[in-house]
Amino acid sequence: MGQVHADAIAQADARIVCVFDQVTEVAQRLGDATGAKVIGTAEDAINHPDVDAVMVVTSSDTHTKLILKAHQAGKAVFCEKPLSNSLEDAQNCIDALGDDGSKRVFLGFNRRFDKHHGALCARVKSGEIGTLEQLIITSRDPYPPPLEYIPKSGGLFSDMMIHDFDMARSILTEEPVSIVANGSSVVDPEIGTLGDVDSATVIMRTASGVLVIIVNSRRCAFGYDQRIEAFGSQGMLISNNVPKTSVTLANGDSHDGKDALPEFFMDRYAESYVAEIETFLDCVRSGKDMPVNAIDGLRAMMLANAATQSNLTGEVVEIAMNELMIKARLLS
Amino acid sequence: MGQVHADAIAQADARIVCVFDQVTEVAQRLGDATGAKVIGTAEDAINHPDVDAVMVVTSSDTHTKLILKAHQAGKAVFCEKPLSNSLEDAQNCIDALGDDGSKRVFLGFNRRFDKHHGALCARVKSGEIGTLEQLIITSRDPYPPPLEYIPKSGGLFSDMMIHDFDMARSILTEEPVSIVANGSSVVDPEIGTLGDVDSATVIMRTASGVLVIIVNSRRCAFGYDQRIEAFGSQGMLISNNVPKTSVTLANGDSHDGKDALPEFFMDRYAESYVAEIETFLDCVRSGKDMPVNAIDGLRAMMLANAATQSNLTGEVVEIAMNELMIKARLLS
Amino acid sequence: MGQVHADAIAQADARIVCVFDQVTEVAQRLGDATGAKVIGTAEDAINHPDVDAVMVVTSSDTHTKLILKAHQAGKAVFCEKPLSNSLEDAQNCIDALGDDGSKRVFLGFNRRFDKHHGALCARVKSGEIGTLEQLIITSRDPYPPPLEYIPKSGGLFSDMMIHDFDMARSILTEEPVSIVANGSSVVDPEIGTLGDVDSATVIMRTASGVLVIIVNSRRCAFGYDQRIEAFGSQGMLISNNVPKTSVTLANGDSHDGKDALPEFFMDRYAESYVAEIETFLDCVRSGKDMPVNAIDGLRAMMLANAATQSNLTGEVVEIAMNELMIKARLLS
Amino acid sequence: MGQVHADAIAQADARIVCVFDQVTEVAQRLGDATGAKVIGTAEDAINHPDVDAVMVVTSSDTHTKLILKAHQAGKAVFCEKPLSNSLEDAQNCIDALGDDGSKRVFLGFNRRFDKHHGALCARVKSGEIGTLEQLIITSRDPYPPPLEYIPKSGGLFSDMMIHDFDMARSILTEEPVSIVANGSSVVDPEIGTLGDVDSATVIMRTASGVLVIIVNSRRCAFGYDQRIEAFGSQGMLISNNVPKTSVTLANGDSHDGKDALPEFFMDRYAESYVAEIETFLDCVRSGKDMPVNAIDGLRAMMLANAATQSNLTGEVVEIAMNELMIKARLLS
Repeated sequence: MGQVHADAIAQADARIVCVFDQVTEVAQRLGDATGAKVIGTAEDAINHPDVDAVMVVTSSDTHTKLILKAHQAGKAVFCEKPLSNSLEDAQNCIDALGDDGSKRVFLGFNRRFDKHHGALCARVKSGEIGTLEQLIITSRDPYPPPLEYIPKSGGLFSDMMIHDFDMARSILTEEPVSIVANGSSVVDPEIGTLGDVDSATVIMRTASGVLVIIVNSRRCAFGYDQRIEAFGSQGMLISNNVPKTSVTLANGDSHDGKDALPEFFMDRYAESYVAEIETFLDCVRSGKDMPVNAIDGLRAMMLANAATQSNLTGEVVEIAMNELMIKARLLS
Repeated sequence: MGQVHADAIAQADARIVCVFDQVTEVAQRLGDATGAKVIGTAEDAINHPDVDAVMVVTSSDTHTKLILKAHQAGKAVFCEKPLSNSLEDAQNCIDALGDDGSKRVFLGFNRRFDKHHGALCARVKSGEIGTLEQLIITSRDPYPPPLEYIPKSGGLFSDMMIHDFDMARSILTEEPVSIVANGSSVVDPEIGTLGDVDSATVIMRTASGVLVIIVNSRRCAFGYDQRIEAFGSQGMLISNNVPKTSVTLANGDSHDGKDALPEFFMDRYAESYVAEIETFLDCVRSGKDMPVNAIDGLRAMMLANAATQSNLTGEVVEIAMNELMIKARLLS
Repeated sequence: MGQVHADAIAQADARIVCVFDQVTEVAQRLGDATGAKVIGTAEDAINHPDVDAVMVVTSSDTHTKLILKAHQAGKAVFCEKPLSNSLEDAQNCIDALGDDGSKRVFLGFNRRFDKHHGALCARVKSGEIGTLEQLIITSRDPYPPPLEYIPKSGGLFSDMMIHDFDMARSILTEEPVSIVANGSSVVDPEIGTLGDVDSATVIMRTASGVLVIIVNSRRCAFGYDQRIEAFGSQGMLISNNVPKTSVTLANGDSHDGKDALPEFFMDRYAESYVAEIETFLDCVRSGKDMPVNAIDGLRAMMLANAATQSNLTGEVVEIAMNELMIKARLLS
Repeated sequence: MGQVHADAIAQADARIVCVFDQVTEVAQRLGDATGAKVIGTAEDAINHPDVDAVMVVTSSDTHTKLILKAHQAGKAVFCEKPLSNSLEDAQNCIDALGDDGSKRVFLGFNRRFDKHHGALCARVKSGEIGTLEQLIITSRDPYPPPLEYIPKSGGLFSDMMIHDFDMARSILTEEPVSIVANGSSVVDPEIGTLGDVDSATVIMRTASGVLVIIVNSRRCAFGYDQRIEAFGSQGMLISNNVPKTSVTLANGDSHDGKDALPEFFMDRYAESYVAEIETFLDCVRSGKDMPVNAIDGLRAMMLANAATQSNLTGEVVEIAMNELMIKARLLS
């Protein structure tokens, strides 16, 4: 993640002054790539006079300690999620920072800055769908992490669903007041043996009765599934998956992802034959003119004949329907 | 087609009084199925006193003769398309019927009565897309007719595209004044050898400058392709293909017919990492509160912890965000 | 519902022999419309010698009594859902029928016979998406029932979600072993006052760990929302909503339901300008031929010139790219 | 366009050494922004010893002269489209460059490098849809250029459709051998008065019979419409429009851009009632067990009752379907 943020900084209007990493080679590599100075301790990096802001992208158990140091040094702080590995430690950090200080620490929930989810969030808040009533967030990873990661991950709810908890909170205008969760290990039973789940759902409820449903899976055969459905009193907004390109395929197996088209005209236009007869019968009974009649039959034939002629001659053919004439266009 | 119309009549509020067919067995079979009387000559069928309306579903070269007989007998007429095999014969028929008589002969362009295309047509005429400027009709058959049918078909423009000519005319509010056509035989060179085309396009133009494009193919690997695009000064309406069901599939190969989803978060949320840093830098420079901060970090952790607890206990867990408390819900 | 089933019978290969209704006028009206005999008691209707099968479409509290009478009379039974208003009464009915008898009573969960949901169900069972892991059913009614109906409805879970419970069971290959529910009354607080909910979600879990999520709302601004998402180890199937027609609209407000298109070429093709320069630089460095070069520039100009000429003359123009010639087509 | 390319160069691995512009202020502004040296004549800029490659982004009538100078100076050349304003001048340039030289001049048809259209092109060439038979390119600008631009534009076919001609050629594997065009001025009659068209269509044909259709409009109410449809012997690929985000809206007016959903269950599930009765009748006649029967009715009721209970108690409820029991989950 350090590299990801370094790349992002390179595209933004800022530069990396200095880097620290417990593994000196990692720091050196980033320093070489960015021109930043490699510093021996986190404290010295934080206190470097040219540093205006500190990015904490270390292991989760060191986050709060570094946040507090940077904050006490008067620096703005960006901290990768999660705030901590432990709820108690996180609570202590907030207490030490105070309310104002806490708001000077940016927490790296990057999905809030996705243009698709962000547009949904903004449109919900603009009132486009009235009052929000139900919110369904689907997040499925393409494949599970290595098994050795599971025990130190903190479990699916803290490691993976935490992004969705934050996303839900960013869309809601009030906090959840209750939550119920249910999970299982259908992707890999070994994950269950390690005390975790790999497929899970929660329902949260706010004071006014908004229901939030989050669906997670550690594996998804069709890639990284990221969708949000916001259902309100006046409509629904869905932030759909974002395919790599806008190209669609239709072949014998499918048509735009749907199953096959009707075989031929008998299937496709079956209902039209009945509607046609009903229209005919209605005209017979009422004495109304037929809406499609012998003259239409003639005119369609005129076009077909003119097209046949044009295809043979390579000329545009002029047609005078009312004079019932087809003629080769007179060229100036 | 006789059977198709007989089925349609059975669903409408009418009955078949009598049937005539040159091949007596065919007439008999339809008579047995519908309870209609089999009659020996077309004239006697037409003149049967219980007959109010005549359906002409014979070979194309007999259409005008039967239309005129039925019309002269004072019966309403439904005629399967095309009006005739010959433009001259069709013209003579119209002349004999006169303008009023011609309008009492229903021509079986059934696609006008399709609810999808019909909805597009009605919405174009309602002015929903302003003034119509371009009309693109795509019609592709799933497979070509037998080769022996080609010589007597009248050619693709008269046999197949005639439906599209009529559809175009039903949507337009003025007649085409010129047409140019271009075709080839890419589906089966034998069709070319027989003097016909199996892939063709025409451009028609109306007096006011509306351009109509029709695209036909005698073969379509994904089924029966039937689409209309109406482009107007204020918008576009498309009557899309109608899949058999609304079920879509996403798997490793595709997602709703589109190519694969992004691999994982680095691809999917790449832009969000840059937007995130830009937001952070903006807050650092402006002194504004961070829009997602340490308190959000704590609250997401509270939800994750509560979800973990609920998953273990099977209880709904209550959360008081502002008091920073999670507690088992007290049950009455 | 009696009328709905009568219409369905009219389209199937069966006829209504006799009808009974507590309100004689209702029975009479159905009798007049269908030609069925009106009978004074349910018992006489059930025992009518021409009756092979009995349809029970009465108030829910009379279902089991009539089922048992029909079953004891040796008749096949179709019963509108639900089986009963009371779980105890339903249990007693099953006990009385026995296992074999219970299976001779058809229960009217009509959604199982919907072609869209049915196709999803069949494809899940065919193994197309591997092992089913998550199932999400969304059912939202367009508007709530009248308030006076709420107290006698049995509550949302029994009255509305019961269709979804059955749908879930029809797709699953094992029974749910646990359930948790959460609801609120966000549509109409009066519904909450009456002790019911109008927005609700449940999570069910099967023994093997499949999670089933059902989302219900008594109101939906965009119509009758009926969707199923089946997520499996190898893919996902979604039975989407079924719009009235396949016509889509694009205008200044939206494009196929999505927000606006890019403004113009600078937005739409922004990335292509970078990719273009990268390709150019790569060719400069490697000495490779430019993939799009001056000759391509000339040839595109030749086509543009020929098109301009054709538009003026109304003739097809022939082009010989390799001889770099455009000429008016020689017509035979 | 100079600024666009300068931005692209900044993101690629290259730098701008020096700039020349007839208007010195423009050159100075670009020089200031990029650190490039401003040079007084095009010749000096081209011949600057640090320059490896020359970008020609000048008025179209100066392109060929500068290309030749740069080529003669031994520099690689990138030239903005079109190659020239005049077909004769373009031809002379190609002659002077020779075949090898021409291929060292990159022509700026940037759309070839769009990832969506590029993916379609690559997939067509991979044979994914068999042999290409029809190619339909739609390009519509959001609004026309200022009227004063029209006379010097070279006309729609040279100014606007030239991109589509190049796109067609990049997808085809053989050159067009004929072309026919038809245009009108429906967007603004003034454009017609100036001798140009603002709505146009061409059909091109290759030697093997591939038909290429291009549809252009100078105005499009829904933004910048850019689509390609490639139809082949084994399938179809469409490069669709690329909306700004993946968010869709459903409300009372539309659902994913389609018209309204069915009103309620009678419309949505109308067919299922008939299919249900047919299944019932089939079971009655064949003696088969009912596929959905009284036991299913009981089980759905059990789930509804358990959900109602869970909603009241906030507890997960356990269900033993086979023992027909619902019980509160025993918590450890």
